[in-house]
Amino acid sequence: MKGSFNPVEMIRSKRDGETHSAADIAGFIAAFGAGAVADYQMSAWLMAVFQRGMDDRETVALTQAMLHSGKVLALPSVKAVKVDKHSTGGVGDKISICLAPLVASCGVAVPMISGRGLGHTGGTLDKLEAIPGYRVELDPKRFERIVRDVGVSMIGQSKELAPADRRMYALRDVTATVECIPLIVASILSKKLAEGIDGLVLDVKVGRGAFMKDARSARALARALVRVGKGAGKRVVALLTDMSSPIGRSIGNGLETREAIETLRGRGPVDTRELTLLLGAEMLVLGKAERSASAARKRLERALDDGSAFERFLRMVKAHGGDPRAVEHPERLARAKVKREVLARHDGYLAECDAQALGLSCVALGAGRTRADQAVDPSAGIELLAQRGERVTRGEPLAVLHARTARLAESELARVARSLTVSRTRPALRRLLIERIS
Amino acid sequence: MKGSFNPVEMIRSKRDGETHSAADIAGFIAAFGAGAVADYQMSAWLMAVFQRGMDDRETVALTQAMLHSGKVLALPSVKAVKVDKHSTGGVGDKISICLAPLVASCGVAVPMISGRGLGHTGGTLDKLEAIPGYRVELDPKRFERIVRDVGVSMIGQSKELAPADRRMYALRDVTATVECIPLIVASILSKKLAEGIDGLVLDVKVGRGAFMKDARSARALARALVRVGKGAGKRVVALLTDMSSPIGRSIGNGLETREAIETLRGRGPVDTRELTLLLGAEMLVLGKAERSASAARKRLERALDDGSAFERFLRMVKAHGGDPRAVEHPERLARAKVKREVLARHDGYLAECDAQALGLSCVALGAGRTRADQAVDPSAGIELLAQRGERVTRGEPLAVLHARTARLAESELARVARSLTVSRTRPALRRLLIERIS
Repeated sequence: MKGSFNPVEMIRSKRDGETHSAADIAGFIAAFGAGAVADYQMSAWLMAVFQRGMDDRETVALTQAMLHSGKVLALPSVKAVKVDKHSTGGVGDKISICLAPLVASCGVAVPMISGRGLGHTGGTLDKLEAIPGYRVELDPKRFERIVRDVGVSMIGQSKELAPADRRMYALRDVTATVECIPLIVASILSKKLAEGIDGLVLDVKVGRGAFMKDARSARALARALVRVGKGAGKRVVALLTDMSSPIGRSIGNGLETREAIETLRGRGPVDTRELTLLLGAEMLVLGKAERSASAARKRLERALDDGSAFERFLRMVKAHGGDPRAVEHPERLARAKVKREVLARHDGYLAECDAQALGLSCVALGAGRTRADQAVDPSAGIELLAQRGERVTRGEPLAVLHARTARLAESELARVARSLTVSRTRPALRRLLIERIS
Repeated sequence: MKGSFNPVEMIRSKRDGETHSAADIAGFIAAFGAGAVADYQMSAWLMAVFQRGMDDRETVALTQAMLHSGKVLALPSVKAVKVDKHSTGGVGDKISICLAPLVASCGVAVPMISGRGLGHTGGTLDKLEAIPGYRVELDPKRFERIVRDVGVSMIGQSKELAPADRRMYALRDVTATVECIPLIVASILSKKLAEGIDGLVLDVKVGRGAFMKDARSARALARALVRVGKGAGKRVVALLTDMSSPIGRSIGNGLETREAIETLRGRGPVDTRELTLLLGAEMLVLGKAERSASAARKRLERALDDGSAFERFLRMVKAHGGDPRAVEHPERLARAKVKREVLARHDGYLAECDAQALGLSCVALGAGRTRADQAVDPSAGIELLAQRGERVTRGEPLAVLHARTARLAESELARVARSLTVSRTRPALRRLLIERIS
């Protein structure tokens, strides 16, 4: 473990494009945790990794080292196979909220630890907190008990899990070393592996509203996640999915939770349901509840349509202290004081629905944050009355902005109008699933 | 000055190989000085510069920004042209001590700010401090007065000059970003330009005992120093000189000062005198005291041989509080308690004299330091009784080790013996001057 004793030699080695041994990486991350590697040394090493890369063996070693920087949950009382899903972040992406209880209702345990929204993409915790009383901070014992009894629990990141990742991410964020595949992979997987899961399905988003704007870089990230996740001994599948337009018909915390509940009741927008089924089928197969994706899909569809997925969500919300009436009457969620419509300026088809611009508008309306310490307004957001590809007529409302004040809503009308393009010709059909990588 | 407001964007830009504007660099260094750029951001940027490089315009801008991070001396009362010399560091390199007073005695003012030894190379300050009473810390006013009245003053780095360089160098040292030409150039030139000089002669060392081990990298550094120094509006010449063997016949602070005094009296080893004359001739021409190097050389030889160079040194030492008797009787300097000889094991020629190994032995004997806060023993060091290329006979002493204790001296006998190679055949003549770059 010479890495633990000589951080300068570790930085020099990566600076010159050499390959680290697993022991060196373990020693370096342990020394960082112990305060023997300074932040300015870690950031120099991160930049060297950004420039010189890391191979899969190094990335597996980094993932393991970051994972073991804190507590690793084992959930010994949970007998079911444990599978989670992670999305690289999108606009209108409320899938976790319908997916986790749905999969649990089909016999696979889902111990899900999620994050908050930052920038133009939303976060599952903010959406759950739109339900009055829902507690996202539970200690590991309570988390394990809910996963055992209900089959699913959705909580926030604990400071005890992968603390090295939190410190490294904070440094990456202020040193321009975020967009680096081995570092992204180790960050995602170390947090997810700390949940004590057996398998992981990754939803790697591609397009204007995603972190990865083009299919080539998204594919590279997805492949690295799958290789490194398998290298760390887990069952892993990744789906590349489209994030040029938002998912479903709502953006904003309360609005999205409402849509997720509709979907759990067998209704909801076609694309929200479809993405839930695609990811859920992979989770059931990884969780060995079904042998094939087609059998898994049928079972998931039944659970959505017969009420068992919704019932599972209701139980989870109750176990987390949430108000069941808000789930049973989701129209009560997210009642903004002010609503303003954006109208179609001519007849045609909704050809473009710019996910990134709509996400940024939502942040401005109060639904998101530009700094990590900001509070969000659960009622703020955008309802999309038309989705990409749909026929619209002049004067018809395309979207409704929800906000706390008229001034706030009106300040975003122009940007939302610009992000919705109506054209004379019907656009090509959206391909939700771009590629499956396993 | 967008750089002053967004350090992350500055790091990203260099990370991606872009070219910074002078305004961005100025803003970035000013923000670093003001605490608005954190050490971990500076170190990430330094690593990005290490990987992606900087062009001459960027390096000039960085030099100017670092220069203006602190006080810049103007020395308005000094009417003579002001020229300094900087060496990239070597073993047995006592040239500054003979050169500065010699050049001053020929009419060019020399305001010289030097450093201490670290690692296997020595430092001028430690050598000056071998003279009892010599004060290297003087305030800028006193420094200016001595340069005006004596024509030369040799002091240590003040905290007020180029403070950004000191902080950046401390970070580079612990983040493996030292060996990077634009950063080396900006570090050297910002400190030297803060002296208020008109011209600068650079002695860029090449070989085993130097920072740059091969002529290619030394040439690249020398060329960059000359281009950037000229870009900053100064007259600059660089000499590439050999540092595979030590300069002269002594290594260690008191021993070297003694040799420098001998040289100032027109005696001293041939190579010490020759390197002094080579660098001095460049300084006289840059300082417009002579038109040609050959005329300058004649004038310098006269000043060495007629006592005027020595007399100038004596005046400077007195002005700095040093004991003139130590200068008049240099055999009083550096009297070590213990001396141990290394003998020739067979007849032949001294073919190799490994400067790096001898430098490291000197550090071990107490003449140098491995940490910046260590004190040095002025009497410790190595006398070379034979120089490279000389004939030696079996049993003849090749070197004498000077140390505080017998144990210390004896512990280095083997390494010194190994670093002096006697061969049957006469080695090729040493070329002291490898190349002149202007």
